[in-house]
Amino acid sequence: MATVTPRTLSGFMELLPAEQLKFERMLALLRETYSSYGFTPLDTPVIESAEVLLAKGGGETEKQVYRFMKGDNDLALRFDLTVPLAKYVAAHYAELSFPFRRYQIGKVYRGERAQRGRFREFYQADIDIIGDGKLDVLNEAEIPAIICDTFTRLGVKRFQIRVNNRKLLNGFYAMNGMSEKAAEIMRTVDKLDKIGAEAVRQCLINDVKMLPCKAENVMDFMAVKGTNDEVIAALERYRGMDATFDEGLDELKTVVRYLADFGVAEENFAVDLTIARGLDYYTGTVYETLMLDHPEIGSVCSGGRYDDLAGYYTDRRLPGVGISIGLTRFFYILSEQGLLSDEGGASPCDALILPMTEELSPAIAAAAALRKAGLRVQLYTEKKKFKAKMSYADRLGVPYVVFLGEDELAEGVLSIKDMRSGEQRKLTADETAALLRADAAGRAAATLIKE
Amino acid sequence: MATVTPRTLSGFMELLPAEQLKFERMLALLRETYSSYGFTPLDTPVIESAEVLLAKGGGETEKQVYRFMKGDNDLALRFDLTVPLAKYVAAHYAELSFPFRRYQIGKVYRGERAQRGRFREFYQADIDIIGDGKLDVLNEAEIPAIICDTFTRLGVKRFQIRVNNRKLLNGFYAMNGMSEKAAEIMRTVDKLDKIGAEAVRQCLINDVKMLPCKAENVMDFMAVKGTNDEVIAALERYRGMDATFDEGLDELKTVVRYLADFGVAEENFAVDLTIARGLDYYTGTVYETLMLDHPEIGSVCSGGRYDDLAGYYTDRRLPGVGISIGLTRFFYILSEQGLLSDEGGASPCDALILPMTEELSPAIAAAAALRKAGLRVQLYTEKKKFKAKMSYADRLGVPYVVFLGEDELAEGVLSIKDMRSGEQRKLTADETAALLRADAAGRAAATLIKE
Repeated sequence: MATVTPRTLSGFMELLPAEQLKFERMLALLRETYSSYGFTPLDTPVIESAEVLLAKGGGETEKQVYRFMKGDNDLALRFDLTVPLAKYVAAHYAELSFPFRRYQIGKVYRGERAQRGRFREFYQADIDIIGDGKLDVLNEAEIPAIICDTFTRLGVKRFQIRVNNRKLLNGFYAMNGMSEKAAEIMRTVDKLDKIGAEAVRQCLINDVKMLPCKAENVMDFMAVKGTNDEVIAALERYRGMDATFDEGLDELKTVVRYLADFGVAEENFAVDLTIARGLDYYTGTVYETLMLDHPEIGSVCSGGRYDDLAGYYTDRRLPGVGISIGLTRFFYILSEQGLLSDEGGASPCDALILPMTEELSPAIAAAAALRKAGLRVQLYTEKKKFKAKMSYADRLGVPYVVFLGEDELAEGVLSIKDMRSGEQRKLTADETAALLRADAAGRAAATLIKE
Repeated sequence: MATVTPRTLSGFMELLPAEQLKFERMLALLRETYSSYGFTPLDTPVIESAEVLLAKGGGETEKQVYRFMKGDNDLALRFDLTVPLAKYVAAHYAELSFPFRRYQIGKVYRGERAQRGRFREFYQADIDIIGDGKLDVLNEAEIPAIICDTFTRLGVKRFQIRVNNRKLLNGFYAMNGMSEKAAEIMRTVDKLDKIGAEAVRQCLINDVKMLPCKAENVMDFMAVKGTNDEVIAALERYRGMDATFDEGLDELKTVVRYLADFGVAEENFAVDLTIARGLDYYTGTVYETLMLDHPEIGSVCSGGRYDDLAGYYTDRRLPGVGISIGLTRFFYILSEQGLLSDEGGASPCDALILPMTEELSPAIAAAAALRKAGLRVQLYTEKKKFKAKMSYADRLGVPYVVFLGEDELAEGVLSIKDMRSGEQRKLTADETAALLRADAAGRAAATLIKE
């Protein structure tokens, strides 16, 4: 007798098979892309000592953390993949080689108020490059290539990586004597997209209490737009007034300079001086990524350069650069908006084999042979009517059904039906394998996201 | 200033990069093998409502569970992948097609006393086939094929899948009037490997309080060994005395009959009447898998047929068959015993590109081109002396280093050094790609486990 209602907690994503197959495809594609740049996979515990995980402490994060006692141990679930990385690098410093390049794709936990599209358990996909003491700006130049490869492979056509450099901002505020108000100014400028330039100018004057001429300077600076060459030319006009600014400009020029060599098209890249990101953390290049036809999604891949990864755990200076994708939310939105293609592989197999005879050996052997040929093949196991078997194949969304009845056995062939076109033909085992392989390759080539 | 010592909790596995790469290879191989049989991936939350997760309640498990409150919610971390599967199938029954074949590879949590080789967070890799009301025995016959494929692909040469059928045991105990003592007898017989036949016989007489002749019957039955044909012939002598026994024998004969068609060699399979497994749960075929050269590891893949997956959540009868590998412990032991090969891919990339000129464009473009050719290529980014660069390549364990200096640029070639042989030569970009691809394919073909 059933005694408990089976339910999944709100804020926790649990997908049906066809959607899960798409999610797995996304995971596989990310692993492949990150590996192609020499990032090594990392897997850290979901549970850490609360003292270690909350070393930084304070803020919204701490309130959201899942924290609990087990025996005498004060434990917490990781709320991001950055703190575990800092712990890992500090703890295993002597055993690692730097630059240390790792990717980690894993679940993190935040007990936020549950609401549509907000998750308490969600995947993050992070890559980071950590230096020992120093880290060349070339690493910052490589990041756009990785973002570009990732979204191109996912099938996103119109996307733009928006880049800024915190040294440009800090230098600009310093040269204008606004350093003290920098954080406040940046928070205000961040509203540009939402409230528009005029409202931001008014906020700067009325709320941040800036002189109108200084507010004007900020608005002029943030309005610098255009091709990469145009933006850099405009920024060159500020050169010589602040050492930090000049450093930031040189770094930006390095990032822009190698874009083409890295294979990043100019249309996928833009300097955007309004981007700031995590105010206390980032110190150099910062990145956001927008799907241009879906700006309402916001940035789908963000990050930047930081100078002190693990200050709470070690006195060593460990600078790095990293980016992160909030996969669960990204997938949820893509799915909601109908942007996920069914073509690529919403089927758990390439073919379903239906035995049509009492003696099952030929069907079993045929399935085994097709698997040996590299195919994903499910053997239908139940004794049901033909119609029920076909209906199962249909609901599973399998591309092909292979029949093996007395006729086929006598002729030494397989009957194979394309479930999409309805076309059915008789083929030898080798021909069947070739057909299925070609079809599987075609589906593998289809992108996950269709815009 | 560092304020907290970075540490990982005891009982939580955290691997260094070279080992993690091997673990990831194992994960990838399992996903591939399970997919090739048409299993669909599943991912359920790590956190569930305690009421749902502990519906069955009681026993050792409940004591080990990580359970805690968050706000008003009584939560728990999953301690296996079977209960979440039961919940999933019961909750999504109407949206699933049966037989429902899923695999799940994920972390589970048990707050056991930490000791060497015991983990509090560990991966399980499960496959299950769930029927709606009924499930054909053919599914039980397919399981050995999947186990066989899995361990063969992992590189284990001498392994044996040991199979029994609970109906044979239950029937045998019934025909001997021992049903009431069945559980106690099975627990005693389970010690055969450890304490030997004579001690088991004495236990049956002295502890289980059996008549010597009845204990003899048990010992005779458990001693049935030999080829599949011999075992079945021996079991046929018991036919006709108990309906359950006869059913079990027919099922066993079906499993054995199709082994060859499924591609399972007789040497990888043995009927073993001493195997019982989970006393209240399994109802038909049960499986254990031994690495014959490492029997001390115990069963590395176990499971069986059950008749009631989700009785706590639904009144529907959902029979199934499944197997599970405790991946973290399995990997730990393989690693401890030096059974993991370095050949397959302990390197995060196929080649490390070392730019040797001030201008980095050619090296960056060369790396991008090799990636386009499907290779995993890391660009070395730091300004260091040549010796430091080579030492980095060495510590990373990369198979090839590619140099690009003035000479190479002038000649339009790349210098490529095999880090294993020390051999260095100049090749065109296409030749380099071909060489790296051949080498990567060779490493991919090497098995993870070397016996």
